[in-house]
Amino acid sequence: MNIILFEDSDIISKNRISLDGRKFEHIRTVLKLKVGDICKIGLVDGKVGRGRVVQIDDISVVMDYTLDKEPPRKIPITLIVCYPRSKTLKKVLQYAASLGVREIMILNSYRVDKSYWNNPILNDANIRHELLLGLEQSGDTVLPKYRIVRLFKPFVEDELSQIIIGKRAVVAHPENHNDQIVDVIKPSSVETVLFIGPEGGLIDYEVESLVKIGFTKLSLGERIQRVEVAVCVAIAKLF
Amino acid sequence: MNIILFEDSDIISKNRISLDGRKFEHIRTVLKLKVGDICKIGLVDGKVGRGRVVQIDDISVVMDYTLDKEPPRKIPITLIVCYPRSKTLKKVLQYAASLGVREIMILNSYRVDKSYWNNPILNDANIRHELLLGLEQSGDTVLPKYRIVRLFKPFVEDELSQIIIGKRAVVAHPENHNDQIVDVIKPSSVETVLFIGPEGGLIDYEVESLVKIGFTKLSLGERIQRVEVAVCVAIAKLF
Repeated sequence: MNIILFEDSDIISKNRISLDGRKFEHIRTVLKLKVGDICKIGLVDGKVGRGRVVQIDDISVVMDYTLDKEPPRKIPITLIVCYPRSKTLKKVLQYAASLGVREIMILNSYRVDKSYWNNPILNDANIRHELLLGLEQSGDTVLPKYRIVRLFKPFVEDELSQIIIGKRAVVAHPENHNDQIVDVIKPSSVETVLFIGPEGGLIDYEVESLVKIGFTKLSLGERIQRVEVAVCVAIAKLF
Repeated sequence: MNIILFEDSDIISKNRISLDGRKFEHIRTVLKLKVGDICKIGLVDGKVGRGRVVQIDDISVVMDYTLDKEPPRKIPITLIVCYPRSKTLKKVLQYAASLGVREIMILNSYRVDKSYWNNPILNDANIRHELLLGLEQSGDTVLPKYRIVRLFKPFVEDELSQIIIGKRAVVAHPENHNDQIVDVIKPSSVETVLFIGPEGGLIDYEVESLVKIGFTKLSLGERIQRVEVAVCVAIAKLF
């Protein structure tokens, strides 16, 4: 936690917040702050600044704060990831948020285990929690937008084909040959849509339908990576 | 598990192995192989090939195998990572092995929690287990070399200064400014030593002593990443 994030509901009076639960525990046991100590703080979806402890007891901490800096800039990327098992999805959400991804879509595809769709991880509160962990890590405040999409074909053909117009559209795809990595133009300002397949990979039909609407294949080498590693590696190669 | 790895001790007769435990469970419940089915197989530190199920019961599977292909090439990198908490170290070992890192050193530094050194994760068997998980993911067979180093100063000054001669030596270091990423030459054949600080970061003295012996700072941007994310991002940027 490299920034303490608070929400409007934590504000108890002008420029004063009260934090409990996980954030209080972090302040008490990891940062070990005492009255008068200062730490980095930010308002979710707002600015970054400093908080100063004015009171701390066994269950909560009261801080005064000032917010005066913009959060770090997002990278202009929409990450589309086929729904992996929940342990992996948590990492993907955390890592993507900490890397500064602006928007995340979680998509169904042929090799997504259908039982996953009943998993409570897909609740708003749980997704938001994982994203906040990523923001806390990286010192950001702005939650990435996210969206869950159940139908691959109509989404790709009708929506995604429109979304990628004027953007760099890339699908990470393991290819079975040595060291061949598609070279990608690398200015950090290019609007990008990055598609990452599920555990088990995309099927040929899916790759083809992405290529058909304008996606370029990005090989991450002949080694097959975990979804969360592919996300980090592909983003690092693109920006 | 994109390859079933076996060891010499699994061989029961010429070109025949018997697998139990975790590998058997994977074959039975994930791959759902039956007698006659074929899967990708490899000998730890040896070649890659195909296995064919000849017998399967409630606790083990017997397979015939042929090994005819070389495993994927390693990337010529020595990863030096300051010892993070064990949950993170496991990910670092898995991810580094799956990315093809050739050698891993786990090093002490100022901000490494001293209590970590008593953690059983540092046992050979446990480190080897995490590395094998990474190899199974990426279809590799060759265990990265690894080494644990307790004393920062003599290691950096006396050994590391010699290790990096003729190599590209890079220390990942979060810098507090927008988008400034040190450009790095990127041929995938350059022998590289990559240094990743601990959770909480390297202290100035440590960064300076690395720069002094010839390390270049690689900024991963103003966002602070988890150790396992920094490993993936830095490797992707370098190769």
